Amino acid sequence: MASIFTKIIDSEIPSYKIAENDKFLAFLDVMPLSLGHTLVVPKQEIDYLYDLPDELLGELFIFSKKVAKKLEKAIDCQRIGVSVIGLEVPHAHVHLIPINNVSDMNFSKPKLKVSSEELEKMANLING
Amino acid sequence: MASIFTKIIDSEIPSYKIAENDKFLAFLDVMPLSLGHTLVVPKQEIDYLYDLPDELLGELFIFSKKVAKKLEKAIDCQRIGVSVIGLEVPHAHVHLIPINNVSDMNFSKPKLKVSSEELEKMANLING
Repeated sequence: MASIFTKIIDSEIPSYKIAENDKFLAFLDVMPLSLGHTLVVPKQEIDYLYDLPDELLGELFIFSKKVAKKLEKAIDCQRIGVSVIGLEVPHAHVHLIPINNVSDMNFSKPKLKVSSEELEKMANLING
Repeated sequence: MASIFTKIIDSEIPSYKIAENDKFLAFLDVMPLSLGHTLVVPKQEIDYLYDLPDELLGELFIFSKKVAKKLEKAIDCQRIGVSVIGLEVPHAHVHLIPINNVSDMNFSKPKLKVSSEELEKMANLING
C-alpha cells in the first residue's frame, strides 16, 4: 500500500507544498513542533534513510538545504534543525525544524495545534 | 579559537574514533543519548550545517551512511536516528543515534553516564 507520503506526492492527499523537483518534495508538517516545521521526502518510496542509494541520499540533503534557506528567510529562528527518526511512517523523511532552543526538537512533547488557515498562511509566507 | 571538534580532529583531545577519511571524522559522543551515539563532523570548521557547500554536504551524509551501517551491525537497535541541532558547539555535527523509541532522540533528557572503559569497549565493538 502506498505510504501517506506517496499519497501526498501523488496529490491524493492535499499538502502545503514548500518545494518540489523530480526527485523530492517538501511540505509543511500538519502537526508541527514549531511554526514552519517542514518534511522533505524522496519521491521514491524507501523506508529507511540509510537505504537510499548514495547519490540520492546526497541529493536529498542538498535539496533540503534549499528548503532550509527558504524557511530561514521567512521564519524568525536561530537556525534550522534536522531530524530523521522514521519509526512511524515507512517512507524516509527529513524533518526541518526552525529552532531557537534544543527543546524545539523534542518529538516527545505535544505538537502544536495549527488550523488549516494558519498552515496555508505559513506556506504562503515561506513561498513568498 | 579552534572548536572542540577541531581539537579532536587534530588529536589535541583524544576521542573514540569510528571512521575517518580526508574530509570527515566520526567518533563516539562521550555524553550519549544511547549506547553507540556517534558524532560525524566535517574536518573543515563550518558552524552551520546548511552553510556547507553542496558537494561537501552531500558527501557528509554519504559518509554518515557508512558510519550508520557500522553502528547497526554492532548495536541492537531498530535503526539509526539522525539529528543536527547545532546551538552549542559552533562546528557542524551530525548525531547518529541507535534508536528503538522516539524518546531515544530527546536531547532534553539526561545523558547516559558512561565510563571511558565502556566507551573504549563500545568503540572496539563497533570497529570489529
